[in-house]
Amino acid sequence: MSRKTNHHMTADEFRRYGKEMVDWIADYYEWVETQRVLPDIEPGDIRKSLPEKPPIHGESFDVIMQDVDQFIMPGITHWQSPGFFAYFPSNTSFPSILGEMMSAGLGQQGMSWKTSPATTELETLVMDWLVDMMGLPRSFHSSTNGGGVIQDTASSATLCALLAARERVTGGVGNRSGAPNTLVAYTSDQAHSSVQKSARIAGIGDDRLRLIPSNESFAMDANALQAAIQKDRDDGLTPFFVSATVGTTSSMAMDPILSIIDAAEGCWIHVDAAMAGTAAMCEEFRWIHEGLERADSYCFNPHKWMFTNFDCDCFWVKDKTALVGALSILPEYLRTAEHLSGAAIDYRDWQIPLGRRLRALKLWFVLRHYGQEGLAFHIREHVRLTEHLAQRIGDDLDFHLVVPRTLNLVCFTHQRGDEFTEQLMERLNASGSIYLSHTRLAGTYTIRMCVGGRDMQQRHVDAAWDQVVNTARELSEELANASRSASEIRA
Amino acid sequence: MSRKTNHHMTADEFRRYGKEMVDWIADYYEWVETQRVLPDIEPGDIRKSLPEKPPIHGESFDVIMQDVDQFIMPGITHWQSPGFFAYFPSNTSFPSILGEMMSAGLGQQGMSWKTSPATTELETLVMDWLVDMMGLPRSFHSSTNGGGVIQDTASSATLCALLAARERVTGGVGNRSGAPNTLVAYTSDQAHSSVQKSARIAGIGDDRLRLIPSNESFAMDANALQAAIQKDRDDGLTPFFVSATVGTTSSMAMDPILSIIDAAEGCWIHVDAAMAGTAAMCEEFRWIHEGLERADSYCFNPHKWMFTNFDCDCFWVKDKTALVGALSILPEYLRTAEHLSGAAIDYRDWQIPLGRRLRALKLWFVLRHYGQEGLAFHIREHVRLTEHLAQRIGDDLDFHLVVPRTLNLVCFTHQRGDEFTEQLMERLNASGSIYLSHTRLAGTYTIRMCVGGRDMQQRHVDAAWDQVVNTARELSEELANASRSASEIRA
Repeated sequence: MSRKTNHHMTADEFRRYGKEMVDWIADYYEWVETQRVLPDIEPGDIRKSLPEKPPIHGESFDVIMQDVDQFIMPGITHWQSPGFFAYFPSNTSFPSILGEMMSAGLGQQGMSWKTSPATTELETLVMDWLVDMMGLPRSFHSSTNGGGVIQDTASSATLCALLAARERVTGGVGNRSGAPNTLVAYTSDQAHSSVQKSARIAGIGDDRLRLIPSNESFAMDANALQAAIQKDRDDGLTPFFVSATVGTTSSMAMDPILSIIDAAEGCWIHVDAAMAGTAAMCEEFRWIHEGLERADSYCFNPHKWMFTNFDCDCFWVKDKTALVGALSILPEYLRTAEHLSGAAIDYRDWQIPLGRRLRALKLWFVLRHYGQEGLAFHIREHVRLTEHLAQRIGDDLDFHLVVPRTLNLVCFTHQRGDEFTEQLMERLNASGSIYLSHTRLAGTYTIRMCVGGRDMQQRHVDAAWDQVVNTARELSEELANASRSASEIRA
Repeated sequence: MSRKTNHHMTADEFRRYGKEMVDWIADYYEWVETQRVLPDIEPGDIRKSLPEKPPIHGESFDVIMQDVDQFIMPGITHWQSPGFFAYFPSNTSFPSILGEMMSAGLGQQGMSWKTSPATTELETLVMDWLVDMMGLPRSFHSSTNGGGVIQDTASSATLCALLAARERVTGGVGNRSGAPNTLVAYTSDQAHSSVQKSARIAGIGDDRLRLIPSNESFAMDANALQAAIQKDRDDGLTPFFVSATVGTTSSMAMDPILSIIDAAEGCWIHVDAAMAGTAAMCEEFRWIHEGLERADSYCFNPHKWMFTNFDCDCFWVKDKTALVGALSILPEYLRTAEHLSGAAIDYRDWQIPLGRRLRALKLWFVLRHYGQEGLAFHIREHVRLTEHLAQRIGDDLDFHLVVPRTLNLVCFTHQRGDEFTEQLMERLNASGSIYLSHTRLAGTYTIRMCVGGRDMQQRHVDAAWDQVVNTARELSEELANASRSASEIRA
């Protein structure tokens, strides 16, 4: 049967379109800076531009690519633009993109060792490499009772940690309906929403996750944690899980890992360093992980600040037995000799889904292309740019740094208060030149600027700050004019 | 700063390596057929061939690519080989690979509508298209109270369905610790292990998932389901969730959706059609979904049998309120005007993780490249090849088809029994020419052959069956010789 009559794209066509796609991607990184960061559209606009009816007959890939440019690109928020300061960088890189391409091309399915030995073994190796490169505790290395696995996101890692904790504290009985419903989990009021989501999914109960107050630095108050645990124990409940944060989403606060571990003896301690963890590539920033060797599990996301495209979360546990105990179910059709002998890891038992692609490839490409030196170079540069930005904010009397700058995040307000700060951010985002996001710290509406785009340089940071200052001035003048007009009308 | 000193791969280098990678992938599909399907290695072999120490300095991408060929490829199980008949096809295609490339290149993060409007709106559109293309119930279309979302796997879809069911039956109180621990879920003893995994994760309790017996066709016995539900109600428990299967993993059995719905009134009915669902692209196979319009949720995996590379599971619900209620948590830093006004979908509330990439792109590429016609063409061809294979098995007195062939799966045993059948499969897999997997049906060791590789043609199916027959003959002769030698020694 000829390729023409069987509807497949031929290898020759793929060679042509694939190479055009490579150029399209390379071009994208060259022109992204010239685009609005946030698209100027309303909900429904993209959908309206596309045909409602699905195709009966196949279409030319030339037409599909034209449609991408004409109808999809106007709906893209440019996370890879050097004007993107919102949320977290989600920076990617060419080596990572090449890894994702190859992974898609090979079409692996590594649910068991046997179904793709390289998928499993490369993943174990890369996770061990990261232990070395980031100075993580030896107890996370695969040569011990612990080990690492790539998850999609920190949300899933947190859920897996919580399930492993339940397994350990109940000795597996937590999986039976007869188990008393007494488990209590803890995190800070600054922790990521995924901790709440995990507790809800696992049926711990929204009200059995205690949001421990944070101190004036927005770090978890270990004394308050200890008191809460004591009260729960006194009430006959079973404290079992604490999720601590290294670099909170809102303000990059660092929970005191050691004090938390002392306060929560017997609990499974999970440490979520989703964005900040990458900083440990630099020895001078490893203080963020102080005490980690006494924690039970840990995760960070190369897809946030380590040039690896989403999704890629790295998750380690000190006791893999609890994790596998929580998640392993072995039907006949998944039995393999290598599993039954214990000779090989089957990563399906380390995660929520069953299937998994060749996830380690892009991370291996990134680690080898940059080396520890190259990654550390960029982290240092991003931190330097953030320091520079913090300096400029600190020098401007109209603005207030809500917390001291840590790593690659600054949080600030305008002196005119919440409403003004919110209007300022909305106007900045509407300009299209930059994209910032917000949070509330101690009730105050606060703008966050997070540095870390692949191509972000000092000129971008300076231009962004100049724009913040100028826009604030404009807005102040408009308000003054409006107030003058109102007075004149009244007068 | 020049690109050379900043450790990034330059755009020009990416153009070069990217195009080499495109050729590498195209070449792969041209030579994969000549390779052993299962690699001939032991656990640890791949790892041993790679350096234990991570790189301090960056390395040349030429060296990295050489290492892929030399050290990674020997550990690849060739899911894309036309000799792969194990598990499920996991077939991919060039348009899908192009979609994954572009998605990686754009580096989108579509957790909220605003953070990537195109990611959200293209996904909604593609999911609506599939409702039309596969004749799915109108109640799954986004213009109703229902809608669809792309998940990573059917495992995650099942978990989300179960969580939505808990939300609905408890009116949200299921998220509180005070809720009575009385929920009971049901599935058949042939259902995928992910149903058990979901019940365990959600804390329903392993013992509160009833594995309802299946009938002689390995389909769920609806009368037994009704009796189990009645008994649980009589015992003061709360039946709330049934997961039915369209095409079981072991034998492609079809649970009777309508009878199950009648038997389980008031329960949330989830239908898992992970591999088989794709067949509904052809009108003549839509009988597999009979009764689906009365179900509450449904999923199938384009990453199994629809030329879309892993991961890609399509999941629909009839009542999105329950799903979003179960999974939505809204911290300040994720608030957007579009969310608060209800004008836009935020798919983070439809899934376990928070983040999401531009998942719909590859599916959009596949649907447009092939059109319904092109996809239906291949499904029909795969079914025809499977019929042909079943015919050959049925004609051979040494073999027994355990169940009648349905769609693209055959299940067979050798007449000499379990031990012989198992030895036969092991020898076939060790040959490297083909890869089959097994299950147990009614206690009998059974070989499964699943048809659906992208490039699988009749000559591959015939060669595979010839090999099964010849290998069985060899094995029989060896056993006869061994038995003769033993007799001679005794004599």
